Amino acid sequence: MNSFGRNIRVSIFGESHGAGIGVIIDGVPAGVELNEADFDADIARRASGALGTTPRKEADRPEVLSGLLNGHTTGTPLTIIFRNGNTRSGDYSQFMDLPRPGHADRVAAVKWNGFNDPRGGGHFSGRITLPVVAAGVVAKKILGDISIKAELTEIGGETNRENWKDLLNRTIAEGDSLGGIIECRTNGLPVGLGGPFFDSMESLLSHAMFSIPGIRGVEFGDGFAASRMKGSEHNDPYVDGRPAKNGAGGINGGLTNGEELVFRIAVKPTASIARAQSTWNFKNGSMDTLEVKGRHDVCFALRTPVIVEAMTALVLADQLVK
Amino acid sequence: MNSFGRNIRVSIFGESHGAGIGVIIDGVPAGVELNEADFDADIARRASGALGTTPRKEADRPEVLSGLLNGHTTGTPLTIIFRNGNTRSGDYSQFMDLPRPGHADRVAAVKWNGFNDPRGGGHFSGRITLPVVAAGVVAKKILGDISIKAELTEIGGETNRENWKDLLNRTIAEGDSLGGIIECRTNGLPVGLGGPFFDSMESLLSHAMFSIPGIRGVEFGDGFAASRMKGSEHNDPYVDGRPAKNGAGGINGGLTNGEELVFRIAVKPTASIARAQSTWNFKNGSMDTLEVKGRHDVCFALRTPVIVEAMTALVLADQLVK
Amino acid sequence: MNSFGRNIRVSIFGESHGAGIGVIIDGVPAGVELNEADFDADIARRASGALGTTPRKEADRPEVLSGLLNGHTTGTPLTIIFRNGNTRSGDYSQFMDLPRPGHADRVAAVKWNGFNDPRGGGHFSGRITLPVVAAGVVAKKILGDISIKAELTEIGGETNRENWKDLLNRTIAEGDSLGGIIECRTNGLPVGLGGPFFDSMESLLSHAMFSIPGIRGVEFGDGFAASRMKGSEHNDPYVDGRPAKNGAGGINGGLTNGEELVFRIAVKPTASIARAQSTWNFKNGSMDTLEVKGRHDVCFALRTPVIVEAMTALVLADQLVK
Amino acid sequence: MNSFGRNIRVSIFGESHGAGIGVIIDGVPAGVELNEADFDADIARRASGALGTTPRKEADRPEVLSGLLNGHTTGTPLTIIFRNGNTRSGDYSQFMDLPRPGHADRVAAVKWNGFNDPRGGGHFSGRITLPVVAAGVVAKKILGDISIKAELTEIGGETNRENWKDLLNRTIAEGDSLGGIIECRTNGLPVGLGGPFFDSMESLLSHAMFSIPGIRGVEFGDGFAASRMKGSEHNDPYVDGRPAKNGAGGINGGLTNGEELVFRIAVKPTASIARAQSTWNFKNGSMDTLEVKGRHDVCFALRTPVIVEAMTALVLADQLVK
Repeated sequence: MNSFGRNIRVSIFGESHGAGIGVIIDGVPAGVELNEADFDADIARRASGALGTTPRKEADRPEVLSGLLNGHTTGTPLTIIFRNGNTRSGDYSQFMDLPRPGHADRVAAVKWNGFNDPRGGGHFSGRITLPVVAAGVVAKKILGDISIKAELTEIGGETNRENWKDLLNRTIAEGDSLGGIIECRTNGLPVGLGGPFFDSMESLLSHAMFSIPGIRGVEFGDGFAASRMKGSEHNDPYVDGRPAKNGAGGINGGLTNGEELVFRIAVKPTASIARAQSTWNFKNGSMDTLEVKGRHDVCFALRTPVIVEAMTALVLADQLVK
Repeated sequence: MNSFGRNIRVSIFGESHGAGIGVIIDGVPAGVELNEADFDADIARRASGALGTTPRKEADRPEVLSGLLNGHTTGTPLTIIFRNGNTRSGDYSQFMDLPRPGHADRVAAVKWNGFNDPRGGGHFSGRITLPVVAAGVVAKKILGDISIKAELTEIGGETNRENWKDLLNRTIAEGDSLGGIIECRTNGLPVGLGGPFFDSMESLLSHAMFSIPGIRGVEFGDGFAASRMKGSEHNDPYVDGRPAKNGAGGINGGLTNGEELVFRIAVKPTASIARAQSTWNFKNGSMDTLEVKGRHDVCFALRTPVIVEAMTALVLADQLVK
Repeated sequence: MNSFGRNIRVSIFGESHGAGIGVIIDGVPAGVELNEADFDADIARRASGALGTTPRKEADRPEVLSGLLNGHTTGTPLTIIFRNGNTRSGDYSQFMDLPRPGHADRVAAVKWNGFNDPRGGGHFSGRITLPVVAAGVVAKKILGDISIKAELTEIGGETNRENWKDLLNRTIAEGDSLGGIIECRTNGLPVGLGGPFFDSMESLLSHAMFSIPGIRGVEFGDGFAASRMKGSEHNDPYVDGRPAKNGAGGINGGLTNGEELVFRIAVKPTASIARAQSTWNFKNGSMDTLEVKGRHDVCFALRTPVIVEAMTALVLADQLVK
Repeated sequence: MNSFGRNIRVSIFGESHGAGIGVIIDGVPAGVELNEADFDADIARRASGALGTTPRKEADRPEVLSGLLNGHTTGTPLTIIFRNGNTRSGDYSQFMDLPRPGHADRVAAVKWNGFNDPRGGGHFSGRITLPVVAAGVVAKKILGDISIKAELTEIGGETNRENWKDLLNRTIAEGDSLGGIIECRTNGLPVGLGGPFFDSMESLLSHAMFSIPGIRGVEFGDGFAASRMKGSEHNDPYVDGRPAKNGAGGINGGLTNGEELVFRIAVKPTASIARAQSTWNFKNGSMDTLEVKGRHDVCFALRTPVIVEAMTALVLADQLVK
């Protein structure tokens, strides 16, 4: 099922080169102020154009089909669609025989007996994150004063931002691609969001994060490093009623503890690279050379922080809306 | 909600020092051979007793209340309960005023206005993983030839097993605790399990893994290391029709690709340690000294692999059962 | 939540006078043949125009936004939208003060603090059944040889079809409206669809039927009459391996028994009538006269059978698709 | 799935002659006062013993396994089980070959390939309504001042209560059985519970009612009679701000309107009757004579009102709890 959430339920649909993509957000309270300009900033953050991102440009204008009247949500399902305009489907025809390494081309064709839409990755395209960002805009409005900030902290292992431009240019020149690490910090949360076990905040947030294409890891607070610490180091005694170190990343027993919610995600390097790759031709039954001519990001992690924020906002709004 | 899964739905209940704990497994096909001895091996793997684990001993006898007749499942909800026998609730009374660092004592009391069951961590106790292991036994039966193997690969950052015994003894002597890394490998999967986006295998598995108390990170295939690789390094061209490196950990686009499914989880060090801790007394409004006298594992990661397997089996069975 | 179904999940959205209405059908298997002409017949059955139905005419052209490629479903969410063209919202402005008896005007305004979309009944409009009918077309394709036939058997208590035209004309002349009874019969079902208790076929079907605006009752097989029969009369012994009387309407213990599935629904008379009504003016706090000038069916039960079929098809497809 | 509800989720399990039956109620707020004596009255109303009900007697003592501490709910899943003590499974062995007309014996055996538990109807037994009644007790507590009252208004078509004793005695003497009509009235509801379309109060309540074994029809307010009324008769103008006639049974557009919630359900006559029945022997492939020697109600509708109340309370609590 392409849905997520219990109180705020998000359902996404669409293929990269189909008529359009979109999202239904069900459960939005009535009376939330919303107009189309509210989407601009986050859509721009996700959009292509910056160094290291694809030159494919879409108008990316949200069209609200339902659930909005006179600048306020109505309480019924809010539906937002985006038309797909600038598509060059011819680029993708070869991928039935020569599936792109690291993409879903092959598994999708097997799963759906060849009826999948292979154009531009179809439903697996990163383009599906556009309606997610739109849904995130709505979720952030619901969250009020709670602030969510996701940032790229590493590109290709490089943590010094000043070196990123050179690294990106060098990688573009090499016809290669890069991954990165994104850190997300949320402040202003009440104590007690989430639940024990299956509804733990970590479960809900990681579920959302791993939905984003190309994520390889999620860690909270001290994360993997915690496994190498002793209890006496890792434990976080209360000082003046608050955990002092926040190595748990704002979560105890699956519940928010009122401290800053902190997690990091690992983004893989873009699978589509400019240089030729030697891979299997399933039609011929032999190795062949694949050249991916589409327009792709050299480092899609650059565009991912706003998606991480959107997902986080959706998970939190689901907890806070009644 | 304390439930998980769509086709095989697991609902857990119970408190550490209540009358009992248990699980309903709904959606189990009729005709699966099952008897109470089937649970022994996995329950023993989870049980206490080995070096580094708590001396609390429970009979841990599963009692099947429903859904089983003449050694076969009936198709209706399968309910398994475990009585809580060996409880010493007196140990825990102080934790209302002096909540244990790294535990849910404080957040649970706030979330439920003091009505939570604090005895032994209540519903947050690791004891709740016992019915999960029982459910995993049933799920493994459904999976047939698919093999799941979770192993502890690191304790306290030490990867050489030969050094673990000394490390554990030293840590016990210090009144401290250790974390670890568990790796889970599954073989025999068909192509196409999971789904794009919200039903991605990574989303479902991480949701399940982060349900287990004390997990700080989850990564698939190359994991966090992938974020530091170039696309040309990380990409995994098909050779003879199969991805050769499996850095994606057996998943493309959220779907299993038929290769070995590989992920790792980071387990934090046990929060309850033998040595005294200085922490806040919420009643007095001042720092105080906490001594946790209960019986606890020095490294509960030792007992966690079978829980990881159970969760993995449940996620996979949910995909395979119709 | 505006969704229904577990394996085939239908999510509807839209307001009568908003930009558009539509449906996502998630879980449709890949490879189902489908083209836009397939929708024509059922949409025409629902459409206005016949004696006793509203003169409002919409193009009612389905637009498939996602999930379809080269005349076959792709396995990803199928989204169908309908633009709202022919709206005269001015008709409805008075209903904030003078809510229409038998409509949701008043309750919607209270539930959503006045932020509801009141134009044409908003989300409560019978127009929302248009995407349901479209979803039903898809569901019927999934059902293959299973045949569903819903028919109007009574209008205003009159069971003789030959008298309906006169009755309708007379009622139109009186500025009044009529209700009716619809019977739905399904053949070709396997034994065992549905489930005990909460997933009983009666539960699932009645849930779907009572979703349709204006339904007052649902009964299966002998229905209310069964409550007046003796066990010896009502019981249905097997003859040649089959229940002979089918007073259970094709269901035993919540499961289909392989016989014809039979149920009836009671449709209320259209609430909007041409004649003036004396009702409360909430602004003035006194009785007032309401004249509903919009375009309405004198008997919307005439248009309802195809909606009943669509809902039945969705419930059954949800059971049959894996 | 054997679960129901979104905010208050009820999961039932158990077979008539298995070890026990029970229910998990997930989502109960913390701090609800509850002790085992609270269950007595409603369990007694459901229990056998009165004229026209089965002489099978069970202790029917609820055992709370989890979610309760010091007489208050804890916020975690509340689990209540009942042991099955007084079973005579020998009575049921013949029903594999000679399935009882009107029972699930045959369909259950087909659905689950003969692995179903046939003893006493297994999971299909009316005994499963015992934990439902227990869950209803909890739900009623959550509802506070909202009052739910279900009453039997007809037995075998007889509406005059004074004649019921004779009718029952006569039917017992004939070895036959009777059905009935139950009316349920709820007062004290706020405006706006439920939702448009799939979450309409009628959908949710009918879903719950048709879960109860042996229900043949559900109608709200004027019910089937509404289909025979004219709009001018059926419409319910607001007088002093309230609908005056309440023919809608307290619901407009799927939402409660603040008036009394009224619905009726049709209960079939008990399928198991004392007199011999001629029915198919599936083993022999010929007609045979069935004598049902178990202990059964001559009119189980007598025991059903409290179950209807429990289900109603669960549906309403699900709406009111956040």
